[in-house]
Amino acid sequence: MQEQVNIMVTLDSAYLPPLKVMLTSLRQNNLSLNIKVWLIHTNIPEKQLVELEQFLQQLKMSLTSIKIPADLFKDAPTVERYPKEMYYRLVCGDILPKEVNRVIYLDPDILVINSLEPLWQLDLADNVFAAAVHSGLTNISEGINNIRLGIDHGYYNSGVLLIDVEKARQLIHLNDIYQTIDQHGKWLLLPDQDVMNYLYGKVTKEIPEEIWNYDTRQAATYMTRSLGKANTHWVAENTVVLHYCGKPKPWDSNSNNRFTLLYAHYQQLTKRIARQITE
Amino acid sequence: MQEQVNIMVTLDSAYLPPLKVMLTSLRQNNLSLNIKVWLIHTNIPEKQLVELEQFLQQLKMSLTSIKIPADLFKDAPTVERYPKEMYYRLVCGDILPKEVNRVIYLDPDILVINSLEPLWQLDLADNVFAAAVHSGLTNISEGINNIRLGIDHGYYNSGVLLIDVEKARQLIHLNDIYQTIDQHGKWLLLPDQDVMNYLYGKVTKEIPEEIWNYDTRQAATYMTRSLGKANTHWVAENTVVLHYCGKPKPWDSNSNNRFTLLYAHYQQLTKRIARQITE
Repeated sequence: MQEQVNIMVTLDSAYLPPLKVMLTSLRQNNLSLNIKVWLIHTNIPEKQLVELEQFLQQLKMSLTSIKIPADLFKDAPTVERYPKEMYYRLVCGDILPKEVNRVIYLDPDILVINSLEPLWQLDLADNVFAAAVHSGLTNISEGINNIRLGIDHGYYNSGVLLIDVEKARQLIHLNDIYQTIDQHGKWLLLPDQDVMNYLYGKVTKEIPEEIWNYDTRQAATYMTRSLGKANTHWVAENTVVLHYCGKPKPWDSNSNNRFTLLYAHYQQLTKRIARQITE
Repeated sequence: MQEQVNIMVTLDSAYLPPLKVMLTSLRQNNLSLNIKVWLIHTNIPEKQLVELEQFLQQLKMSLTSIKIPADLFKDAPTVERYPKEMYYRLVCGDILPKEVNRVIYLDPDILVINSLEPLWQLDLADNVFAAAVHSGLTNISEGINNIRLGIDHGYYNSGVLLIDVEKARQLIHLNDIYQTIDQHGKWLLLPDQDVMNYLYGKVTKEIPEEIWNYDTRQAATYMTRSLGKANTHWVAENTVVLHYCGKPKPWDSNSNNRFTLLYAHYQQLTKRIARQITE
């Protein structure tokens, strides 16, 4: 039996359709991986969880869903302003069972188009996270974020994370997160991502964004930075995670760029797999 | 055992790589079809045929290759000007064994992204062929071709054909084709396609191009004609054959439109399948 690869997702009912598309692409391009999905949520109805589990059986993945008690974040200072699901990935050490010591967190607006194994096998050294920096052509957002947050590293995107859950248990505490939000709340634009960068950026290992967190809005930037090397064929061969950041989302009917068709094709594969359940 | 679906391809060594990509997409999106590939060629080396057969075993398809004797077309008037492989699809009745009575011909610069079964099951009535017309926004090429060739139907594209091989045996004769080329050679722009339209357009059933022979250069035309309905998501759901007509070909590094990534992704799947053979 191959080693179990833990995939963590944290979302609500609205994101179950893209989650299925993401997992279909993950399976299609990682046929031999032994994948377990950890779904952390607050209020997905039981019926939808059963349906998701049946879908994952078709993909030969196992599912454990963990419902967070509504009062776990009752002391969070900004519960009104931002959904608390945002913080689940940071405090996953407190949520996942003790036997889970490594996990890959993935946003649902993602396609996995090549092997995830090199990320799973990555040596984190003393770091808690591995993440990519969305640096753009000029790194101007890094500069602004460095001033805004007082950090001296790239501004990490929290949509794709390798997490040493064991180290997270020791290092990451809800109270630190609450304190940061209390003190710096007015400066936080993307609260979970800001908190991660501010508190834990120093224990994050940078991984190349073109491979592990390719922002589909930035295709021209990647082409320019690579002096023309990172064209469409390079992406198909080398990129592992296509991250459909921003709006429109790739499932919106007005999404119509060079990344839409691949997403729509995986939506179609997903529908076919779902149909097999009822047949 | 499910009915055998016959796929015919006619090409030389240079087109073996795209052929593998086309067949990979065909299998991926037609998992339950019992597919037999008929490869008609003049001079593909034995070693490459063995390699192709191994590849098709991975796809769970069977292969029969038929080498055309170099002198079969020795009386063809235009052997010098055009490759004779062009005519194989028209005279397949003389080439394929008697037990083959229906076949789908596919160009190699194609992806099959949905079920081919409705085409295979199509009622041809008294026709020999089913084919799509690439009509464009104004049908201007139909007008020109109608004058040029003296035909009164749409100008069919010969890249995707359903063929009643039994009827083709009765109706299609090499001498008629030679005579046409002799008489009209100077007017023939795309010789095989022109010959098919001129001689056999009247026994061809038209099938919708957006479904069965989607010209990737014409995405804007399809959008306009459908009043915006045939967007990228519609294509992913409804189109069966994406035909990468014209230049650059989708495997060229300078191909960079909204259809390139899906093609490049299937190239990547094809490479993975080829690697399984050596492992």
